[in-house]
Amino acid sequence: MDGTRVFLANSNQHINIGKEKHSRNGFVYVKNPHLDLMEEDILYHLALGTKTHNLPAMFGDIKFVCVGGSPNRMKAFAQFMQKELGHEGEDNDLENICAGTDRYSMYKVGPVLSISHGMGIPSISIMLHELIKLLHHAKCCDVTIIRIGTSGGLGVEPGSVVITDVAVDSFFKPQFEQVILDRVVTRSTELDQDLASELLKCSRNDFPTLMGHTMCTYDFYEGQGRLDGALCCFSNEKKLEYLKRAYNAGVRNIEMESTVFAAMCRLCGLKGCSTIKI
Amino acid sequence: MDGTRVFLANSNQHINIGKEKHSRNGFVYVKNPHLDLMEEDILYHLALGTKTHNLPAMFGDIKFVCVGGSPNRMKAFAQFMQKELGHEGEDNDLENICAGTDRYSMYKVGPVLSISHGMGIPSISIMLHELIKLLHHAKCCDVTIIRIGTSGGLGVEPGSVVITDVAVDSFFKPQFEQVILDRVVTRSTELDQDLASELLKCSRNDFPTLMGHTMCTYDFYEGQGRLDGALCCFSNEKKLEYLKRAYNAGVRNIEMESTVFAAMCRLCGLKGCSTIKI
Repeated sequence: MDGTRVFLANSNQHINIGKEKHSRNGFVYVKNPHLDLMEEDILYHLALGTKTHNLPAMFGDIKFVCVGGSPNRMKAFAQFMQKELGHEGEDNDLENICAGTDRYSMYKVGPVLSISHGMGIPSISIMLHELIKLLHHAKCCDVTIIRIGTSGGLGVEPGSVVITDVAVDSFFKPQFEQVILDRVVTRSTELDQDLASELLKCSRNDFPTLMGHTMCTYDFYEGQGRLDGALCCFSNEKKLEYLKRAYNAGVRNIEMESTVFAAMCRLCGLKGCSTIKI
Repeated sequence: MDGTRVFLANSNQHINIGKEKHSRNGFVYVKNPHLDLMEEDILYHLALGTKTHNLPAMFGDIKFVCVGGSPNRMKAFAQFMQKELGHEGEDNDLENICAGTDRYSMYKVGPVLSISHGMGIPSISIMLHELIKLLHHAKCCDVTIIRIGTSGGLGVEPGSVVITDVAVDSFFKPQFEQVILDRVVTRSTELDQDLASELLKCSRNDFPTLMGHTMCTYDFYEGQGRLDGALCCFSNEKKLEYLKRAYNAGVRNIEMESTVFAAMCRLCGLKGCSTIKI
């Protein structure tokens, strides 16, 4: 899967599409029998739809999707990709494909899609449901999805990049609890190990890169041991004791989206990886 | 608490500040002993701070905070408030106070603050932590906070407004489970009943207004019984059976932020209410 090198690559490297076929001949698939019965599928939060847009024409060539929290950063990433892929100065300037809504921002540069997802599991989950349907409707094949972002680190040098091997919850368990109606279903949060290894090989000498577990919480303050929220009922000692236990369980960084990202990628045939700068 | 009428009021009505004193003499308070020991408090996601900004001068007169998911809508609401309060055409045009970040948008019109919070519990939770600290640092007193938005309804006419009496989780329980480090703490999600009653009295004849429970989920698709997500493993019958049970438990609308909103308002001395259009 050399193609993933695009993320940490020098500009003279080419994008190669992964050779190994993923499940179901590499297509991104939905797991919803109701969708086939629908005349129209409206992707509400992306301001796109199967009747209003020609999704295969617009997105059929997508091979890489990069997602991150902040709209500005995902625009900056798309601009970076324009330079890397030599797409600068083309007629079609970088436009926000989701301009019809202010929920998410989306930019396309050749085979690379760059999308913002906001903060937290619910916000990225809405985007992923609609993105996966978009890739499915567009008949995209062999798609690699990489979450890029920043987060707090655990026992790693500031400026390092942590590549996630598995996302864990607040209790260090490699699972995501999805409530379906009022039933709790536990889903695996293991990410694509081949892709993670390929990304690790792309690391350069100018910043440390390591593989580790990423802990995903529902809360930035009380859930991550921060002492400066509006509410805090634990001591600095308790915080350090918890973070030490997390470190001993293999956690190297803490953020707020990785468990649902990993769970949904696995279920829908997307090769997923998370690379977070500390 | 006549002052709350500003939300559904005609433009010739005045804002009156609530007469009853809230807990701790009406001040918004934090529950964090560590904050007093900090030299500086940086509200990272609002791009504001105690050393970089004179928070009492900027925000000390705030009496009403209105929060909603979409940045564009919260700007439109602030523009509406400009008209309602006769603040149009002033020198200082409506500027986004959080322009230094793209996480949230914030506008101030006289004593009214309008802020976006993104989608989902984690996203609104980060904003509320920092908003509560902001109001605390600014020494604001007798603050009323109202969540405004849209959501799916249950057995209510489209166009209705549901005023939340209590927020419930996916299991119809009036509680919010907050993970603190790796301990689960259950918090009450009851909202200010006097404020809810006052808002109900403000209703007008042009749309139905009712009081009811608001159900808050972590997910828009599988968690709310939608049949059109990328993943769906339940039948239409199962969905309807679940929604019927929710209705029988008193639920009149379903959204993704109300439990943590209610829990944090209660804990920090903010009179909170949620008014959602179906």
